[in-house]
Amino acid sequence: MGGIGAAVNHSPGEALDLAGIFVFAVSGALLAVRKDFDLVGMLVLAGITALGGGVVRDLVLGAVPPVAFTDPGYLLVPVLATAVVFVAHAPLGRLGTPILVFDAAGLGLFCVAGAAKALAYGLGPVQAVALGTITAIGGGVARDVLANEVPAVLRAGSVFYAIPAVLGATLVVTAQHFHLYGSPAAAGAAGLVFALRVLALRFGWTAPRPRPPADTTDD
Amino acid sequence: MGGIGAAVNHSPGEALDLAGIFVFAVSGALLAVRKDFDLVGMLVLAGITALGGGVVRDLVLGAVPPVAFTDPGYLLVPVLATAVVFVAHAPLGRLGTPILVFDAAGLGLFCVAGAAKALAYGLGPVQAVALGTITAIGGGVARDVLANEVPAVLRAGSVFYAIPAVLGATLVVTAQHFHLYGSPAAAGAAGLVFALRVLALRFGWTAPRPRPPADTTDD
Amino acid sequence: MGGIGAAVNHSPGEALDLAGIFVFAVSGALLAVRKDFDLVGMLVLAGITALGGGVVRDLVLGAVPPVAFTDPGYLLVPVLATAVVFVAHAPLGRLGTPILVFDAAGLGLFCVAGAAKALAYGLGPVQAVALGTITAIGGGVARDVLANEVPAVLRAGSVFYAIPAVLGATLVVTAQHFHLYGSPAAAGAAGLVFALRVLALRFGWTAPRPRPPADTTDD
Repeated sequence: MGGIGAAVNHSPGEALDLAGIFVFAVSGALLAVRKDFDLVGMLVLAGITALGGGVVRDLVLGAVPPVAFTDPGYLLVPVLATAVVFVAHAPLGRLGTPILVFDAAGLGLFCVAGAAKALAYGLGPVQAVALGTITAIGGGVARDVLANEVPAVLRAGSVFYAIPAVLGATLVVTAQHFHLYGSPAAAGAAGLVFALRVLALRFGWTAPRPRPPADTTDD
Repeated sequence: MGGIGAAVNHSPGEALDLAGIFVFAVSGALLAVRKDFDLVGMLVLAGITALGGGVVRDLVLGAVPPVAFTDPGYLLVPVLATAVVFVAHAPLGRLGTPILVFDAAGLGLFCVAGAAKALAYGLGPVQAVALGTITAIGGGVARDVLANEVPAVLRAGSVFYAIPAVLGATLVVTAQHFHLYGSPAAAGAAGLVFALRVLALRFGWTAPRPRPPADTTDD
Repeated sequence: MGGIGAAVNHSPGEALDLAGIFVFAVSGALLAVRKDFDLVGMLVLAGITALGGGVVRDLVLGAVPPVAFTDPGYLLVPVLATAVVFVAHAPLGRLGTPILVFDAAGLGLFCVAGAAKALAYGLGPVQAVALGTITAIGGGVARDVLANEVPAVLRAGSVFYAIPAVLGATLVVTAQHFHLYGSPAAAGAAGLVFALRVLALRFGWTAPRPRPPADTTDD
C-alpha cells in the first residue's frame, strides 16, 4: 500500500496525476467557453471535470477528506488551467487532436490510480474495476451534466472511452491478483488505455449499441 | 440490528433486494435505449438507477464502502439487466405494465430497507423517513438527470411515486417506535407501498400541484 | 472548535442557519412552480437547494451523518418553506427583490459556516475557501441541474454570486490565520458577502467572461 499511496500522493507519480488533472480541467474550461459561461462557470467546470471522479472514489472508499481537499495542488491546477483557457481558448479550441491525446493520457492514469486505490482499501476485483472506471469517466460525466448536455461518453456513436478504462482497471486487478502489480504494471496498464483510446479516435471505434427501436414507428 | 443487517445483507431478504436492483436497472437500460445511448450508456444508466439511491444512503450514514461496493452481486445484477435489455429491449419496452409493477416492488423494498438502515445507524424518525425516500427515488432521479431529462418523479401530472415511499418509510419508523419492527412489519410496509403505487397507476392518482401561475400571462 | 461547532449547531447562530436554509428552500420551491412540478418536485427542489451544499461539505469532511440528517429542524424547514410557497407562490414570485436579498443573506451565512467548519476539520486555507464556496453555491447548482437548466451561477452575464462567496470564505481563512476568527469576524465576513451581492444586483456587476469565440463563425 505504501507504493500505491506514494504513487497517488508524493512521488514522480504525482506529477503525472497533476498532468492528468490539468488536461481534464482544460477540457472542462473549454466546454464552459463553448457554453458561453463566465469565469466562475469555467472554474466550476474545470474543477469538477478534473476532480469529480477522484472525489467520488474517495467518498466511496471512506478516504476523507478526499485527496482533492488535502493537497492544495489538486485545487490550484484547475485554477491554472482555467487561466490558460481564459486567455488562449481560441488556439486551444483549434488544437482538437492534441487535447484529445492528453485527455487519453489522463484517462489511463485515472483508471489505474482509481483501481489501485480501491484494491488498497480492500475492495474486491469487480468493485475495483467499477471504481477505477468511475474515477476515470466520472468527472467528464459531471462536466456534461452541469453543462446541461447528455454526457458524451453515454451516446451511441461516441468513440471508445469507458471501455479502455474498464480494460485498464481490469489489468490492474489481474496484476494485483498475481502479485505482479507495481510501477511497471501501472505504467503498462495506463499506456494500454492511452493507446486504445488514441487508436479508437484514429479509426472511429465505437461501443456496441442496441438495435435501434425501429418498431416504435408502428406505435 | 442483527435482523435488519441480515435483511439487508445475507438472507432471503437479499434475493428481494437483488430483484429490486434488477428491475430498477432494467428501467435505466430501457431509458438508455430510448435516448439512443450505446452499451456503455446502458450500463451507466442501469447501474446508477439501481444503485444510486443506496450509495447516497450509505454515504450519508457513513456506511462505507457502500454495500454496492462490498457485495459483487450488486454490481453484477445491473450488468445482467443490461445484457437482457440489449438483446430484448423491443419486447421489454412493449411490456409497459409488467415493468411498472416490478418497479413498484423495488420502490417498496428500497424505501423500507433505507428507512430501517437509517434507524439502525441511529438517525431520528424524520431523518429516517427522508433517507428511506431518498433511497427509493434517488436512483431514478439520477437516471433522468444523466439522460438530460427533467426527473419524472418531480413533474406535475406524474403518478404517485415518492408519496408511497414516504408512507412506507413512515410505517417502518412507526413500527420501530412501538418495538413492532421486524420481518412482518417490513413486508407489510413494502407491500403497502407496492399496492399504493399499483393503484395509483391504475387510477391515475397524482400528487397535489400548486395552482398554475396564471398571472404570469399578464407579464 | 467549540465556538464554531456551537455556531453551526446549537446557538443563536442556528437561528441564522435555519433562516438561510428557509430562503434557499423558498428559491428551490419557486423554481419548481415555474417548471410546473408537483408538490413532490417542490419538496425535492426546496430540500436540495437548502441542504445540498451542506451535505456535500459534510461528506467531504467525513462529518457523517451530515448535520442535515442529525437535526430534524434542517429537514423540517424546507417542508415549511414548500408549504408557504405552495399557497403563496404568486405573491412570493412577484417579490423578486426581497427574495434575492434574503438569498444574499443565506449566501453569506453558508460560505462563512462552510469555510469555518472546513478549518475546524483541519483543511488547509485553499481547501477551506473552496469548500466554503461549494457550501454556499452547491445547493443552487444542484437545484438547477435537477430542474434540467444550466446552473444560473455558471452563465455569462449572471450577476456576481460565487465571487462574494469566495471573498467571504477567504476572509474567514485570513482571520483564522491571524487568530482573529470569532463571532465578530464571522458576522463581518457574512455581512460583506451580503453587501457585495446586493450591490452586484443593484449595479449589475458580472464576472469576467472569456472573449466570445468569434472565430467560430469561420467554421
